[in-house]
Amino acid sequence: MTILTLLTDFGTTDYYAGAVKGVVLGLAPGATLVDLSHDLAAGDVAAGAFVWAAATASFPAGCCHLAVVDPGVGSGRRILAIAAGGSVYLAPDNGLATWVLERHPEASCYAVDRPDLYLAAPGATFHGRDRFAPLAAFLLCGGQASDLGAAIEDPARLPLPPPSRGAERLTGHVIHIDRYGNLVTDVPAAWLAGSFSCVAVGYHRVERLVSHYAELGVGEAAALVGSLGTLELSANHEHLANRWRVTVGTAVEVLLPNEG
Amino acid sequence: MTILTLLTDFGTTDYYAGAVKGVVLGLAPGATLVDLSHDLAAGDVAAGAFVWAAATASFPAGCCHLAVVDPGVGSGRRILAIAAGGSVYLAPDNGLATWVLERHPEASCYAVDRPDLYLAAPGATFHGRDRFAPLAAFLLCGGQASDLGAAIEDPARLPLPPPSRGAERLTGHVIHIDRYGNLVTDVPAAWLAGSFSCVAVGYHRVERLVSHYAELGVGEAAALVGSLGTLELSANHEHLANRWRVTVGTAVEVLLPNEG
Amino acid sequence: MTILTLLTDFGTTDYYAGAVKGVVLGLAPGATLVDLSHDLAAGDVAAGAFVWAAATASFPAGCCHLAVVDPGVGSGRRILAIAAGGSVYLAPDNGLATWVLERHPEASCYAVDRPDLYLAAPGATFHGRDRFAPLAAFLLCGGQASDLGAAIEDPARLPLPPPSRGAERLTGHVIHIDRYGNLVTDVPAAWLAGSFSCVAVGYHRVERLVSHYAELGVGEAAALVGSLGTLELSANHEHLANRWRVTVGTAVEVLLPNEG
Repeated sequence: MTILTLLTDFGTTDYYAGAVKGVVLGLAPGATLVDLSHDLAAGDVAAGAFVWAAATASFPAGCCHLAVVDPGVGSGRRILAIAAGGSVYLAPDNGLATWVLERHPEASCYAVDRPDLYLAAPGATFHGRDRFAPLAAFLLCGGQASDLGAAIEDPARLPLPPPSRGAERLTGHVIHIDRYGNLVTDVPAAWLAGSFSCVAVGYHRVERLVSHYAELGVGEAAALVGSLGTLELSANHEHLANRWRVTVGTAVEVLLPNEG
Repeated sequence: MTILTLLTDFGTTDYYAGAVKGVVLGLAPGATLVDLSHDLAAGDVAAGAFVWAAATASFPAGCCHLAVVDPGVGSGRRILAIAAGGSVYLAPDNGLATWVLERHPEASCYAVDRPDLYLAAPGATFHGRDRFAPLAAFLLCGGQASDLGAAIEDPARLPLPPPSRGAERLTGHVIHIDRYGNLVTDVPAAWLAGSFSCVAVGYHRVERLVSHYAELGVGEAAALVGSLGTLELSANHEHLANRWRVTVGTAVEVLLPNEG
Repeated sequence: MTILTLLTDFGTTDYYAGAVKGVVLGLAPGATLVDLSHDLAAGDVAAGAFVWAAATASFPAGCCHLAVVDPGVGSGRRILAIAAGGSVYLAPDNGLATWVLERHPEASCYAVDRPDLYLAAPGATFHGRDRFAPLAAFLLCGGQASDLGAAIEDPARLPLPPPSRGAERLTGHVIHIDRYGNLVTDVPAAWLAGSFSCVAVGYHRVERLVSHYAELGVGEAAALVGSLGTLELSANHEHLANRWRVTVGTAVEVLLPNEG
């Protein structure tokens, strides 16, 4: 295990991400550090959970994945280590692992309890540097997730109301808004069987299913199969989420062709 | 070839850049990934083209350079591989390689046609992960650009009206605005022979040629020789492009000393 | 020495950071590049000085640390090389090393004078690429800081009025505002002996000392021991610096319990 990916809300103007990298490189020389993002909105556990699962899904087995979006740092919240798919995931146990756990129902979870590994450091506000970084280094040096603490069955999970499938309609939610303004939903594209009557998001609706953005006129909105295999709503060259004022969690309804 | 540089408009809050890195590291273990930027304005092919050529110019031969600013993803636009200067450049064939091709008139271009390398993945909207990343890994593992597809002579190019040189005046354009607000032009500094009467950009003009910013009072504007060997217009400690409301493409006129 | 950390105000939409990386990798193949940040506010030497010292403090000995926030680029300002703690720090001699020098009173400073190492390049505005990058590569290839120029005793330092300690009150300053809006001060937490009557910042005051953010209600403000061992002021889930309109340099006063 030599690759460590990093996902945080530390921002890009502070010393926090750098300090984590420094601790890891000191304890695990030769580690390969891969930045996923340090620019998640401050404290946005839900967005972090989505991005973490989506990004790490493309990595090979044998990586250590560290995510820190941790508004409860210093409190009693646990640190979670997850062994899944041949890799280990480290995060505060605050729901950040929700989507990773969705993808890996077979995962083994551990409540980390290794104060012997933690750095002596002032304050209780920077577990990224003082706890997560040495834990990641321990894994990069050959340690196992199961060495980090007792197995647990109750990792924190964000509520994820599942999409539902009827004969005439599918219902789901906007689960992510990307930087282009695309609305990523949780409605599996496979449920569509290739067509629909319309997709409704609040007062807005689209009636076209396209395969890529360039099929659309500038600003024209439509649905398409997104890169995670779910339905997405997009406008060509325009930020659809801003235009429609849609936020994560908004309900999405798909009327199937056999309706009406 | 072990270095892969990455330039995209994927932003820094999404999973896209991370997913590309994951695919590459899975297929080409040991590759050295170098982030140039993932923060280009969404869909801004022209800015990407400029930054790509300027940044890659400082790398040694033997690198793979991947750029993805790809509003036409999923459409019929080709994928372009360019062998030039001992390195290989990969990008959508949408003009993103314009400045790289300007710098390398000797470049060999190929229209990539290697579906055997592409990842099976849902949707047609994320060629960065599903096509460009495995293509880059193929190159990092020893593949040649010429293995990727047929040679072509017509890679897409953005219109680049060239600067022109007269006895009394030089005319050119603002080709880039950097984060400090400096106006980078396409007027070769060598054409100046060390002096000018004035440089005009719209209603604005400067009459001083300085060698560095600190020669200027705060907010004072002047011309200087920029880091790419062309004329730049700058204001000390102030964002000149915002002050003057100048955008990329704006005409620039240089009156030479022998005029009038 | 194979690790080079990079801290700049080059931004994330330009070619500058990429060009520096390219020069280093060409001259010092195999170097490990670690981005600390390229997103410091343009020209903000004070913020860079703080972040540089705080981030590099977590790295092992034997690194090269390069910081470029350089509004005086091209002028007569010196280039500074500092040997301290087994690592070498490179920066323009404009105060950017202030906090690094505070932390390393034993540091040896050198005024770099190695034009033989500099790249021939147009313009005088990009010493990051043309001077700092080859200097860093020289160090990464085994060069010593003392090889770079004459020892000096007068590196530039920003004025850092020290905090002061009385029997009844401590006075200090806000020295950093982080991305969460926390106010980092220079008042050593050790001076508190665990309690205080109140902390005043302008018209605002807090009367609680907590150990972590989650002890607070949403928006509630308090003091805590920060990750650098000094007093911090924070509001839970709110950007305290924006709410209070506090900037770096603002005075902070701590009334100790034995007062009044």
